Amino acid sequence: MNQPVRHGAMRARNLALVLGEIAGGGPLTRAALAELTGLTKTTVSSLVADLLSAGLVAQAPAARGGERGRPGVEVRLSGEHVAALGLEVNVDYLAACLVDLTGAVRARRTVRADNRASRPEPVLAALDRLAGETLAGVPSLRVAGAVLAVPGTVGERRVHHAPHLGWRNVETADIAARLSVAPVAVENEANLAALGELEFGAAPRDFLYVSGEIGVGAGLVRDGGLLRGSSGLAGELGHVVVTDGGPACRCGSRGCLEVYAGRGSLPDPASLAADDPRAAAACRRAGRALGLALSSAVNLLDPGTIVLGGCYVPLFPWLAPAVEAVLDERLGALRPAPPALVPAVTGPDAAVLGAAGQVLRRVLADPASLA
Amino acid sequence: MNQPVRHGAMRARNLALVLGEIAGGGPLTRAALAELTGLTKTTVSSLVADLLSAGLVAQAPAARGGERGRPGVEVRLSGEHVAALGLEVNVDYLAACLVDLTGAVRARRTVRADNRASRPEPVLAALDRLAGETLAGVPSLRVAGAVLAVPGTVGERRVHHAPHLGWRNVETADIAARLSVAPVAVENEANLAALGELEFGAAPRDFLYVSGEIGVGAGLVRDGGLLRGSSGLAGELGHVVVTDGGPACRCGSRGCLEVYAGRGSLPDPASLAADDPRAAAACRRAGRALGLALSSAVNLLDPGTIVLGGCYVPLFPWLAPAVEAVLDERLGALRPAPPALVPAVTGPDAAVLGAAGQVLRRVLADPASLA
Repeated sequence: MNQPVRHGAMRARNLALVLGEIAGGGPLTRAALAELTGLTKTTVSSLVADLLSAGLVAQAPAARGGERGRPGVEVRLSGEHVAALGLEVNVDYLAACLVDLTGAVRARRTVRADNRASRPEPVLAALDRLAGETLAGVPSLRVAGAVLAVPGTVGERRVHHAPHLGWRNVETADIAARLSVAPVAVENEANLAALGELEFGAAPRDFLYVSGEIGVGAGLVRDGGLLRGSSGLAGELGHVVVTDGGPACRCGSRGCLEVYAGRGSLPDPASLAADDPRAAAACRRAGRALGLALSSAVNLLDPGTIVLGGCYVPLFPWLAPAVEAVLDERLGALRPAPPALVPAVTGPDAAVLGAAGQVLRRVLADPASLA
Repeated sequence: MNQPVRHGAMRARNLALVLGEIAGGGPLTRAALAELTGLTKTTVSSLVADLLSAGLVAQAPAARGGERGRPGVEVRLSGEHVAALGLEVNVDYLAACLVDLTGAVRARRTVRADNRASRPEPVLAALDRLAGETLAGVPSLRVAGAVLAVPGTVGERRVHHAPHLGWRNVETADIAARLSVAPVAVENEANLAALGELEFGAAPRDFLYVSGEIGVGAGLVRDGGLLRGSSGLAGELGHVVVTDGGPACRCGSRGCLEVYAGRGSLPDPASLAADDPRAAAACRRAGRALGLALSSAVNLLDPGTIVLGGCYVPLFPWLAPAVEAVLDERLGALRPAPPALVPAVTGPDAAVLGAAGQVLRRVLADPASLA
């Protein structure tokens, strides 16, 4: 504490530099780290010692068995000490997911819950219990923070409106105060699911992720980053117009995509597997509405690929033909070809995985907060 | 030519560095330039001499009249030698605009022309004549290049489809070969109009520019840069769905915004000034359609401001109330407030101004191609 601030800032930067190299290209020896970062070997050794004692990295077995001493010892990210918590409040479930620093999922829990027209307090109390149970199974891990996924529009300091939950203007600080972990950030569910698919799935670096739940949302990933919009509210695909003056939507408007293609309008995948013609027809109707909204999204955003996630994954074989037919019909003439349509890899965990991934990004960007 | 390549690359970088400082903060003395760039005064003097002989900069009158000699002499961008040509082929007019290096418009011409269902060859011949007439008035200016605005989807090497012109898969190289200036780049009209409004208008750095012509397009500017999409085709607001199965659109689809709110569906501003109730009703209908498509655009893109340009500028007082009513109705609940709706400042010249601006950007980024 008696060292000048400049030294602290430089150490923080160098810790992030070294940890970043280990995360991106590890395991690495101290000598290799010195070469990659341009820092002296003495400085690297001191920084690695700090990262080791914070539990962020671990010594890897000597790279070449025949040699002795430090040069052969490599350093890698440690999965044994620090972890990130992803949380989700959705319309009919709560979820928690613990991911260690290497990106491995160490524990996850999902419970059914009817959160329609709920008050935040009891929902967050139930979520906090679920988080506690999730952490209890892996007591050796220290939680560096949590990100909470919410199905609604989220601004810098509050949830503006989560229509299906019935939450309006709920302050982030009030949410954080009701959870036992810290720090807590709150983000839109579809945005986090898009990042989950990017970091834990097989998606390319340019895609529109469509999250099919009771509500419908989307996240546009471009060059590996999320398009957030001028106030963080981009990607509200669920409220794109399908029919002016159509059926009422929970958002207060009418004829939004969500009314036609939310989970409430879709059949159970089991009935499709049983060849129920009414279920197939319901899929075609929802697929047509989804195709219409997506044609508007493609015209505006020009994504490289469209990834259908959430409840659309098991229904993909029945939905995709209707969606593709509308995309061909509406986009065929204006561009060489409509973007490819693919199912998500991450399934229903996309948002909690993406949420935990955001905590990991923060740790890697600022290890000094832990070391 | 007998100097090593590295020296050439470094000189090119340093020329751009010095010219960038002059463009951003000029007029400046050589001493100030050396301080700002970190280059030696000798190097700066040599670079400035090259920029002077290329006509890119000029000596400004001595800053302080009482002093003598070089230290007081300042260097600024020159408006007397190098200029940029903006060109536009639209559905019912051709336009050309010559802008000097200081951003001043030196000549501009617009001619009515019926380019519906045209072949590119005669249209480009007429455009080349118009460009020649525009340049003839200012013979002292040397044209560093041209950018052509086209109302259609433009990819890296071709115009994919300009529905109202009836152009499909027209190669950029074939367009360039028919014009007397070089080099020529081709870009979507609405994208260039958005950049024109950014650089020559009063727009903020985060906005959705809506170009109202026979066709309707849009360009999203975020942090001062254009969102182009994964294949350069973003911003096709004119083909966003207003009514599934509505009237046929020139693009081959149905019920697109363009059918309801293109210039062909709008009244003459003169009839509105004369208080014609049918004209006012036509504006309300078009405004409602525009509001519906814009509500989808705001849900997806979350722009800070919406700027209505082109033919929407003179109609703004009649259109805006209908647009704003729909935005309130459809967006009110999900976000604190819909984005502000404002008329464009640049008027019908936005696209040619933006086109010329792109050439200027290129000159400032690579003055070595001229010096």
